[in-house]
Amino acid sequence: MKTIPSPYLLYLGDAKDDLSVKTSRGVATWRPALCVGEHSAEGCEVSLGLPQLSFTDAVDKGAKTLIIGIANAGGSMSPQIIKHAIDALNAGMNLASGLHDRLSDHLEIVAAAKNNGLQIFDIRQPPNNLVVGNGRPRAGRRLLTVGTDCSVGKMYTTLALEKELKNRGVNANFRATGQTGILIAQSGIPIDAVIADFISGSVEMISPARDDGGWDLIEGQGSLFHPSYAGVSLGLLHGAQPDALILCHEFDRPHMRGIPGRPLPDLATCLKSNLEAARVTNPDAIAVGVCVNSSRLSPEQAKSACAEIERELGLPCQDPIAMGINRIADRLLECFDKSAAA
Amino acid sequence: MKTIPSPYLLYLGDAKDDLSVKTSRGVATWRPALCVGEHSAEGCEVSLGLPQLSFTDAVDKGAKTLIIGIANAGGSMSPQIIKHAIDALNAGMNLASGLHDRLSDHLEIVAAAKNNGLQIFDIRQPPNNLVVGNGRPRAGRRLLTVGTDCSVGKMYTTLALEKELKNRGVNANFRATGQTGILIAQSGIPIDAVIADFISGSVEMISPARDDGGWDLIEGQGSLFHPSYAGVSLGLLHGAQPDALILCHEFDRPHMRGIPGRPLPDLATCLKSNLEAARVTNPDAIAVGVCVNSSRLSPEQAKSACAEIERELGLPCQDPIAMGINRIADRLLECFDKSAAA
Repeated sequence: MKTIPSPYLLYLGDAKDDLSVKTSRGVATWRPALCVGEHSAEGCEVSLGLPQLSFTDAVDKGAKTLIIGIANAGGSMSPQIIKHAIDALNAGMNLASGLHDRLSDHLEIVAAAKNNGLQIFDIRQPPNNLVVGNGRPRAGRRLLTVGTDCSVGKMYTTLALEKELKNRGVNANFRATGQTGILIAQSGIPIDAVIADFISGSVEMISPARDDGGWDLIEGQGSLFHPSYAGVSLGLLHGAQPDALILCHEFDRPHMRGIPGRPLPDLATCLKSNLEAARVTNPDAIAVGVCVNSSRLSPEQAKSACAEIERELGLPCQDPIAMGINRIADRLLECFDKSAAA
Repeated sequence: MKTIPSPYLLYLGDAKDDLSVKTSRGVATWRPALCVGEHSAEGCEVSLGLPQLSFTDAVDKGAKTLIIGIANAGGSMSPQIIKHAIDALNAGMNLASGLHDRLSDHLEIVAAAKNNGLQIFDIRQPPNNLVVGNGRPRAGRRLLTVGTDCSVGKMYTTLALEKELKNRGVNANFRATGQTGILIAQSGIPIDAVIADFISGSVEMISPARDDGGWDLIEGQGSLFHPSYAGVSLGLLHGAQPDALILCHEFDRPHMRGIPGRPLPDLATCLKSNLEAARVTNPDAIAVGVCVNSSRLSPEQAKSACAEIERELGLPCQDPIAMGINRIADRLLECFDKSAAA
């Protein structure tokens, strides 16, 4: 896997709402040190609160890559985006894009990159050198976030735990499996975009054997109980070979994402299935906590709902946004010896 | 999904051993009525026992498609195969190939197809119009074969059951998820070659709602316990939304395919996991039998081993090659009302 050169300039285009710059915002939130500024086009109505920089100013400030982290209708590149992409290359920045429409499919962008000796990264595009997984035990410690559903905070949880562990001097690295995560980590594989045969092998590739005592914290995807994406989740679970799982859940979500009428699994059933499947490649896999999104509840309701989960599952349960993730980090470090501490 | 026109001429090239014509043999075995003959090149040392026909003779006998169902080193097309492919097109046959090297990547083959108004089918290449699955209940009855491992007889079992049911006047159709199966069924999707997000959706596509009372018998792939391919197997299970499962197993296999040292799961555990996962999309899923490959055992050992499985799991257990599949068909029809009978 190639590394996306940093620091970044975050491209906002003419975005009108916050949702369409969600990816850029994720990078700005979790890796402020990677971001020298933002670049808006005429008509843009949002800001990430970073310095507004022209391409040449950004390069002067050290920017190495323009991040096209926007979601527009259809995921295609407008003539304006193409023009800006070429301008950025000519100014001296590499390009990374999360749009469905690939940079590499636009010959004028490819030519500009070549002329300037720069790289383009289509982060939805998996590498070509994937192999099938083998499940053989590998060195190192790995934690994976799993979920009752898609979009229940697995990336957020993984990054919050990385931050918490780093604050405690524990060697831990976020490993990315989705597009925002890949921009944050500067590398990774979009696991839902690989050929089905290579799901687990891709995860073995992003979290290879390590012997420095540190943790790989692997971003989960989907849910074993989501009928659209469970294959991705199971391959991820087997490939991650996790020592530890954190189960992620959103309180009071009315139905599985995208499927009105389909209820979420209960947490105990979901956790049991994930542990059984994880033990196919790591017989010692355990759960160390539950992370919830409690934004639909009042603080009192959230506290009570977390307490109930703690009683039922015997695991610390926190909303990482509202409550932090310290008790789950405590449990993780209690369960594994402290040799991981730097 | 397009249908591969029949009847077929089976191309053997200059194959030296039986393994390299395995795909063609599968077609000849299960769909003799589809095959007008075989075509060998100079130096070929195997035969399927079909009439040896030139391309023009085959066309005279009604052949609509040349099946390149051979496995050569690297899966690439030799200059000789390319020449023969073009000759076949010029003689008036469509082409279907299971090689990794795609027909559609050879411009001279594409041109010859166009000139002759004929089609080319790269059966390892999924269609472009895949969608994500939704798991919504759909009409019809479906059976899926699942396994303790890869290559334990899932395709054979599915086809043997189709034959048995048809012999009893039950409306049943084999649905293909692998390359040999696709040539046999004349359509299907190579499920391990789709983008991970589309696994379950692909299976929903090959076994759409049906209201004629008949069964879709879906070819399984991999195993929930194979660390390389379990994601494929789980997506297949969810997409199939099966009413009935048959568990397939090979006695005395020393380790999971391709992974020396990794034992196979025990049958009860494997069946339980498959049923739990199947019930995510079909809460009423049940198992109706166990099919074994007993070729490593003596007939007496096989009989005794099957009897032990029957006691343990409470399901009929047969080796479909050595013993037939009648008792499993009996159980299937006992468990579901007889409205499926034609």
